[in-house]
Amino acid sequence: MSKPAPKKVVLAYSGGLDTSIILKWLQEEYGAEVVTFTADLGQGEELAPAKEKALKLGIKPENIFIDDLREEFVRDFVFPMFRANTVYEGQYLLGTSIARPLISKRQIEIARMVGADAVCHGATGKGNDQVRFELGYYALEPDIRVIAPWREWDFKSREALLDFAEKHQIPISKDKRGEAPFSVDANLLHSSSEGKVLEDPAVEAPEFVHQRTISPEAAPDTPTVITIAFEKGDPVAIDGEALSPAALLTKLNQLGHDNGVGRLDLVENRFIGMKSRGVYETPGGTILLAAHRGMESITLDRGAMHLKDELMPKYASLIYNGFWFSPEREMLQAAIDLSQQKVSGTVRVKLYKGNVTVIGRESANSLYDQDLVTFEEGVQAYDHKDAEGFIKLNALRLRVLAKRDGQKG
Amino acid sequence: MSKPAPKKVVLAYSGGLDTSIILKWLQEEYGAEVVTFTADLGQGEELAPAKEKALKLGIKPENIFIDDLREEFVRDFVFPMFRANTVYEGQYLLGTSIARPLISKRQIEIARMVGADAVCHGATGKGNDQVRFELGYYALEPDIRVIAPWREWDFKSREALLDFAEKHQIPISKDKRGEAPFSVDANLLHSSSEGKVLEDPAVEAPEFVHQRTISPEAAPDTPTVITIAFEKGDPVAIDGEALSPAALLTKLNQLGHDNGVGRLDLVENRFIGMKSRGVYETPGGTILLAAHRGMESITLDRGAMHLKDELMPKYASLIYNGFWFSPEREMLQAAIDLSQQKVSGTVRVKLYKGNVTVIGRESANSLYDQDLVTFEEGVQAYDHKDAEGFIKLNALRLRVLAKRDGQKG
Amino acid sequence: MSKPAPKKVVLAYSGGLDTSIILKWLQEEYGAEVVTFTADLGQGEELAPAKEKALKLGIKPENIFIDDLREEFVRDFVFPMFRANTVYEGQYLLGTSIARPLISKRQIEIARMVGADAVCHGATGKGNDQVRFELGYYALEPDIRVIAPWREWDFKSREALLDFAEKHQIPISKDKRGEAPFSVDANLLHSSSEGKVLEDPAVEAPEFVHQRTISPEAAPDTPTVITIAFEKGDPVAIDGEALSPAALLTKLNQLGHDNGVGRLDLVENRFIGMKSRGVYETPGGTILLAAHRGMESITLDRGAMHLKDELMPKYASLIYNGFWFSPEREMLQAAIDLSQQKVSGTVRVKLYKGNVTVIGRESANSLYDQDLVTFEEGVQAYDHKDAEGFIKLNALRLRVLAKRDGQKG
Amino acid sequence: MSKPAPKKVVLAYSGGLDTSIILKWLQEEYGAEVVTFTADLGQGEELAPAKEKALKLGIKPENIFIDDLREEFVRDFVFPMFRANTVYEGQYLLGTSIARPLISKRQIEIARMVGADAVCHGATGKGNDQVRFELGYYALEPDIRVIAPWREWDFKSREALLDFAEKHQIPISKDKRGEAPFSVDANLLHSSSEGKVLEDPAVEAPEFVHQRTISPEAAPDTPTVITIAFEKGDPVAIDGEALSPAALLTKLNQLGHDNGVGRLDLVENRFIGMKSRGVYETPGGTILLAAHRGMESITLDRGAMHLKDELMPKYASLIYNGFWFSPEREMLQAAIDLSQQKVSGTVRVKLYKGNVTVIGRESANSLYDQDLVTFEEGVQAYDHKDAEGFIKLNALRLRVLAKRDGQKG
Repeated sequence: MSKPAPKKVVLAYSGGLDTSIILKWLQEEYGAEVVTFTADLGQGEELAPAKEKALKLGIKPENIFIDDLREEFVRDFVFPMFRANTVYEGQYLLGTSIARPLISKRQIEIARMVGADAVCHGATGKGNDQVRFELGYYALEPDIRVIAPWREWDFKSREALLDFAEKHQIPISKDKRGEAPFSVDANLLHSSSEGKVLEDPAVEAPEFVHQRTISPEAAPDTPTVITIAFEKGDPVAIDGEALSPAALLTKLNQLGHDNGVGRLDLVENRFIGMKSRGVYETPGGTILLAAHRGMESITLDRGAMHLKDELMPKYASLIYNGFWFSPEREMLQAAIDLSQQKVSGTVRVKLYKGNVTVIGRESANSLYDQDLVTFEEGVQAYDHKDAEGFIKLNALRLRVLAKRDGQKG
Repeated sequence: MSKPAPKKVVLAYSGGLDTSIILKWLQEEYGAEVVTFTADLGQGEELAPAKEKALKLGIKPENIFIDDLREEFVRDFVFPMFRANTVYEGQYLLGTSIARPLISKRQIEIARMVGADAVCHGATGKGNDQVRFELGYYALEPDIRVIAPWREWDFKSREALLDFAEKHQIPISKDKRGEAPFSVDANLLHSSSEGKVLEDPAVEAPEFVHQRTISPEAAPDTPTVITIAFEKGDPVAIDGEALSPAALLTKLNQLGHDNGVGRLDLVENRFIGMKSRGVYETPGGTILLAAHRGMESITLDRGAMHLKDELMPKYASLIYNGFWFSPEREMLQAAIDLSQQKVSGTVRVKLYKGNVTVIGRESANSLYDQDLVTFEEGVQAYDHKDAEGFIKLNALRLRVLAKRDGQKG
Repeated sequence: MSKPAPKKVVLAYSGGLDTSIILKWLQEEYGAEVVTFTADLGQGEELAPAKEKALKLGIKPENIFIDDLREEFVRDFVFPMFRANTVYEGQYLLGTSIARPLISKRQIEIARMVGADAVCHGATGKGNDQVRFELGYYALEPDIRVIAPWREWDFKSREALLDFAEKHQIPISKDKRGEAPFSVDANLLHSSSEGKVLEDPAVEAPEFVHQRTISPEAAPDTPTVITIAFEKGDPVAIDGEALSPAALLTKLNQLGHDNGVGRLDLVENRFIGMKSRGVYETPGGTILLAAHRGMESITLDRGAMHLKDELMPKYASLIYNGFWFSPEREMLQAAIDLSQQKVSGTVRVKLYKGNVTVIGRESANSLYDQDLVTFEEGVQAYDHKDAEGFIKLNALRLRVLAKRDGQKG
Repeated sequence: MSKPAPKKVVLAYSGGLDTSIILKWLQEEYGAEVVTFTADLGQGEELAPAKEKALKLGIKPENIFIDDLREEFVRDFVFPMFRANTVYEGQYLLGTSIARPLISKRQIEIARMVGADAVCHGATGKGNDQVRFELGYYALEPDIRVIAPWREWDFKSREALLDFAEKHQIPISKDKRGEAPFSVDANLLHSSSEGKVLEDPAVEAPEFVHQRTISPEAAPDTPTVITIAFEKGDPVAIDGEALSPAALLTKLNQLGHDNGVGRLDLVENRFIGMKSRGVYETPGGTILLAAHRGMESITLDRGAMHLKDELMPKYASLIYNGFWFSPEREMLQAAIDLSQQKVSGTVRVKLYKGNVTVIGRESANSLYDQDLVTFEEGVQAYDHKDAEGFIKLNALRLRVLAKRDGQKG
């Protein structure tokens, strides 16, 4: 199947060496007009250099898109995910996974605006991100041409790549000459590190791979106590100060960073079938997860909570595997969102050297409230004797079984 | 419904004030012969006084049963539960719940031995434990008579109870005169505290309710690193020293205690329909959960792990609600146990001021091992191009949907 | 616990002997003012006699409520349930279960209107219906007083009941003197029969228990083919004729009846813990289930369909157990309803001597449509070679396992 | 990636035109020694001609394997699957899916015996079977070379294929000259038909595609009643005659055939992402599913049954998608098998013109049995009053919710 060359390609462009090489390669390999898209998702890098670099590499100004997506990212992706108390494989807060659908979405929007017939990303052929990007592209624009250079080009080694870069006058900072000791992905929710020095899961992750947090050991000896306010399942204020989604997560990140909160060293299962080891730092998200559970603990009914807990692993896998834009993720979201209507109030959280402890919860919607629980005497008071009937009928089938099966053991 | 009086009753007897009152009440109310059963489940109390006290209250020596059930408890109840990484409502390690079925089981065994026609427990009418005890009794001995004094007797107040005690010369220690500021349940897996000073979920739990752990703040400034060895999903050694189940958990408890590990302040949903707030301390269990997940992370296949994660909430609810001796719990256990055949190896864990961090995992059964993952070149090497087909077919249904539904957003 | 007597009671009143006895008993036992509520849910009985009888038994005209709830029943209860392809224990279409919440809801509405402090139903103490009614009452009006005469009164035998009836001049039709050979519940969705002649599950249900269907043997030798149109998951027309929900189900019932469709002889598990045997006839519902699945088969995405199939057993149990008005049922409904947005089109169904066979499906929203599936050549055509990569990556973890575990068998 | 040519290939060989072409192509394309494997899975074809044909095509006698796998197929694959009441997408009995892992397994066993380095199947690149075969191969022999000619060769048309056949003197029966009006897969469990005349899901399947059943219309006017005996969830006898697994299924197939039982016209979702329409005939399996549910209805506890129902959709998908040899399928099987220990007894089934009706069930393990259900009076009799407490505590959380949320509607 030899496809015709793409004419105009929207490239997810970080401004770094690798995507600069891809940019040139797209021009060379396909003679394609390249449109660069650089997003601020809170990764902590300036965007201006990316613009400059794109210009230098010959991209027309009208083909350079720089977007600050931080608010959209937190409001429409991170917070909905946290409503479900989402963790993958019991631990991972999905910081990389949840950013990918937004990048895909914006890239497709730009492709439509500029009349591009293709999109391109810089994810490798052994990871999850290629899947997440591409499932997003296809779900939104089913006939889009997808270019994944790492799966397509013929460079046999890092050396060959660098030669190509040099040949095309792509600046190579000194530290890129050798291979990095690990690779990083970052956004407002987390940073992840993997590869090289982390490859042996028997060996402790070195301190220097961490970027977003100081170590618990280095954190202050005094706890920090904060109060987080929630409305309908989403955090809206810290210590009484109303904050936009991105500003709130930024502040939680700072608090987490300072108290050594949110590190995770994990061996996980990739969608494509292999295990990998990563170090994640999700300072604000780790606080948010604990606080949200705390908020739900007094405002959410048992039936709703248990259903959420049962649905969560599937929901997490869908996000991890790249199925954000799928009917089943949207169905689960509808169920989860409905459950959050009354999840409002405040939670007090203590941060101390890596620990996040919920120490208080209050809500006008509390289902715990004493006056509420105590039914009017004489009308419907809780009657201890009710428990007998409750137990007897719950036991009935077990008793019938025991009569049939005889003594166990 | 007036049932005939029971003739011989096996009482779960702690030796404390409340169960001593029950003992007398059984004699008075029913004229029943009372058999006491006192178990060492690692609650940290001497059993000898319970024996003495029973004798003083007129129990015949042959009717006094004192059993050390610690090994059975950990081996047959705690460890099987931890194979599933079980947490209730996302957080609770089920320390109280998992002890109840063993007590029920032993009580029924004694009832059979002594020819008793009834069993009796001291759990109140507003809690989960009455359910757990009684479902256990009925599942094992369907026609047993169950006596739950707290649901049956007419004492209107604590005062009335104490008067009854005094009248029957049951010794009342001074501190029992007033009401305790909170109530406690303890065994080798955990201690739980609830009631009174803990009733307002907005107010931080006072330091003095904690029994099993020092606070993270009080813990040493230097981390402790240990290595836990697993065989088929169960821990078998610490730092190379093979230990029996109870000895191992005891040692983990000490390590957890010393490092401020395992505190949880939680509002949870009881089976009987209300919310309650408790403070749990599960020092060893908290370490074990983290270590077990770490062990599984390199030895368990993704399909098995994800299935376990999906089944876990139901499994946890079954244990929490008292359905240990139910066909569905046994079915889930069969599935879980099968998954653990290769979960063997060692995990290194760092304990530091409340944090439990897995810092290394090794196993002869590793699915991560590099040599294993790298397939022979030229035969079946991982081919980056495979990812394209994988993505394309995973995307197919989403593309068909997008073609039908048109642009989103 | 001696509660004060209720002052005004809304009774679910059928006009039959049993609820007439209850009516009198409420007046006698409590001196309560009785309000009768009689609903037409399509059970196939005239309501006028119920009104007359209530008047004769001394109910004030303003205290007699007669409501035709058929449209609401089908539109807001039956159809939402069928969107989920709901069956309990693999087979039962929940005809009785789904009617109860509507009766509860209307009864509570009337109680509010007339200022009643209690509601009363005629369900026995060994069945599911008492649970369904009462969970509905409590979920809607948490402090309502609930009276369940069959659990409360002292009549020791059917004879004693009849004596009470005679004493209060409640007319007893001749056939009620002896006990009925089985008991019946009916509404627009189904009729159920149980008890007496059906009690031995080894013995075939006699032909005479059936009320809503002729037998397959008695049905015509020629098939009937109909076309059902759906909009957003609900049926809206038969053979091109638009029909209201109740009219549509009535017509399907007739078609099912005439073709011997919809009989089920089942041993099921009651919520209260015992097994019971019932004969159900759900002629229209059986056709609707098959047709709805047929409609979904071309309009619903795989991810949505499989999620629905996984959620259904829990959804069915919630309805069976009486938890219609629960947060978790509403969460599941939100997910299910979202999935139905494009489930529109027509299904052709053949009815023949008990068989319901989908023989054709068409939809403007079809995901099967050939033109849609065939992607433009040269751009994104389905490439057979994609399957290789798809398989290779799906196989990867299995291969790693096999390398570790060695040969099986 | 140019792999070295395989030296010795085990081909799943039916003896038909297509796999004969593949045989020759393997010899031509790779110069490989071909080993043929032909299995009797009850597809209803003689195996002798396959042997002759293989010899004619130059296969050495020691390289021809002909195996009767019928008993193994039914005992180790079909029956375990039926223990779970398995249906895919609510309806499909998985007749094709369940045969694939056995073929893969035997093919790998032969490859080991003869020292082959590759296996080959004749499934096309657009279907599920390629996935099922290959996941089976890889799970059992992770480094095996897999050859899927339909994804590899360059034949552009059916004509080109036939030319190749002619050139190599492969006999082409007259009816193969034109394209078949539909394609067929068959084994002892079912036959499936798809393609061509069945491609439009709006058009009724023509009568002539059916192979295993007469139509309900053509079936006798008199019902056939049979009794099926089960032991531990598997059928073991019909009408008192003990039969081996394959013999039993054969007999059920005949009974189903004669009574027009087991036809299904379905649009389903393939694993590879598209919808397809098929006509399935599973006469014996349809009877078995109904009978097994009937047997479980009196011998299986509710908790076990509901858990099975919740697990089933995932279990079905695993089989459909080809993951028979996966840890998660084995885990589910362990749970399911445990539940079947007491599923023994007899079920009477009436077959009539397409209908399968359970009309009676008996078991020494019945949980329905009246004497068992009736507890001794005075000790633990079912007390109607227990229901009140049961309902009250089940309602408690709903009442607390209602108090918080105020009136609904």
